[in-house]
Amino acid sequence: MSRLGKFYGVGVGPGDPELMTTKALNVLKSVDVICAPKSKKDKESIALSIVKEALNRDFEVISPVFPMTKDIDAIEEYWDRAAEMISSELEKGRSVAFVTIGDPMFYSTYVYVLERMNERIPDLKIETIPGVNSISACLAELNIPLAGRDERMAILPAAYGLEELDSLSKTLDIVVLMKVSRSFDEIVKRLDELSLKDDAIFVSGCGTKAFFSSDIGSMLGKKIDYLSMIIIRGRKK
Amino acid sequence: MSRLGKFYGVGVGPGDPELMTTKALNVLKSVDVICAPKSKKDKESIALSIVKEALNRDFEVISPVFPMTKDIDAIEEYWDRAAEMISSELEKGRSVAFVTIGDPMFYSTYVYVLERMNERIPDLKIETIPGVNSISACLAELNIPLAGRDERMAILPAAYGLEELDSLSKTLDIVVLMKVSRSFDEIVKRLDELSLKDDAIFVSGCGTKAFFSSDIGSMLGKKIDYLSMIIIRGRKK
Repeated sequence: MSRLGKFYGVGVGPGDPELMTTKALNVLKSVDVICAPKSKKDKESIALSIVKEALNRDFEVISPVFPMTKDIDAIEEYWDRAAEMISSELEKGRSVAFVTIGDPMFYSTYVYVLERMNERIPDLKIETIPGVNSISACLAELNIPLAGRDERMAILPAAYGLEELDSLSKTLDIVVLMKVSRSFDEIVKRLDELSLKDDAIFVSGCGTKAFFSSDIGSMLGKKIDYLSMIIIRGRKK
Repeated sequence: MSRLGKFYGVGVGPGDPELMTTKALNVLKSVDVICAPKSKKDKESIALSIVKEALNRDFEVISPVFPMTKDIDAIEEYWDRAAEMISSELEKGRSVAFVTIGDPMFYSTYVYVLERMNERIPDLKIETIPGVNSISACLAELNIPLAGRDERMAILPAAYGLEELDSLSKTLDIVVLMKVSRSFDEIVKRLDELSLKDDAIFVSGCGTKAFFSSDIGSMLGKKIDYLSMIIIRGRKK
């Protein structure tokens, strides 16, 4: 019998602790250690604050730092270090839950940690618990439908380029731009150039207190929340 | 004070009752009536069977029929009839929860019912509770990552045509084909023509007992589950 602990990836949903699943809650109550990465040493992880509110009791936490950067080489060593921290707990026979806001398989760093854990410990028992993603949460709170049954959709992480936006907005029904906070002014400029500004809505605060605006231009120069997105109605509108 | 009941759209997640959120459970426990459409008169709704398992007690149900058809004109009258059934309960001051498998805003008929409820009763109080969608659930169960932080994704409801598949698979990182059951053989043929068969995986049984195959051809001629999908790794592979 292996004395290795079990590794969990747990989606804690978009922000409201009530939007966690029963399964996620049960796993978080049962594990020995919760791993919650943070972007800076002195800044608490959003996922961890959701867990704290939901569990309402003390628990052991490890918090690797994942700096916000687009430089893949620089960040890979942070992911490696996180995998090392997690492995060291698992090897003591302790179970570890890596928590992510939203859903673990959907634009989350869990994807990179999972890859590393599979490489480090080939026979590791891994269980991933899906969560409600931020797109679903935002649109639910605002009662805005996303996709009807025949609609074609694209999702672009805007921080990594908008080359495809022009053609996608012409051929598909919906284009969602994720992670728009870091280059918001540039994105608005591009939407303007492509005559898409009037077909776009801005949403933020998903899972906590949702906010939306159909006047994207009015958001210029404002502080844009990290979990904001822009939804563009394409061709069919 | 209005005596109108409140209307809820509730995502019950992909199948496992433990993948419902606390909020969804609380709403379903509190409402007077649960509305669960079904595709045929004598066939129980999947969403309703999830709710039954989760609540484990009797509750009042209304079950409009939504036949499976691509004919929009034919189905619109069914959506109208559902809106009428719901309105009649709300007007008696009773609260109604319309349940959908997965997430209400993501390829669900809730979108069409919501539209009608807004038209029929302009001052209706509506609350939508997001859910875990089937894509997230499938990939979690299989421990297959969907999108890393810089990946571009498209989602196509395959039953409504695959015209964009060729260009999307060349420009994006991931293409998800939803609703592949009804025209599965045709889809496999098209993937073969586009030389995408080896980059595709087939997943089904999301939320209950997930199944996956990287040999799409071997699935030809088999009975394909309604909630199946095909995930294609595009350009960057």
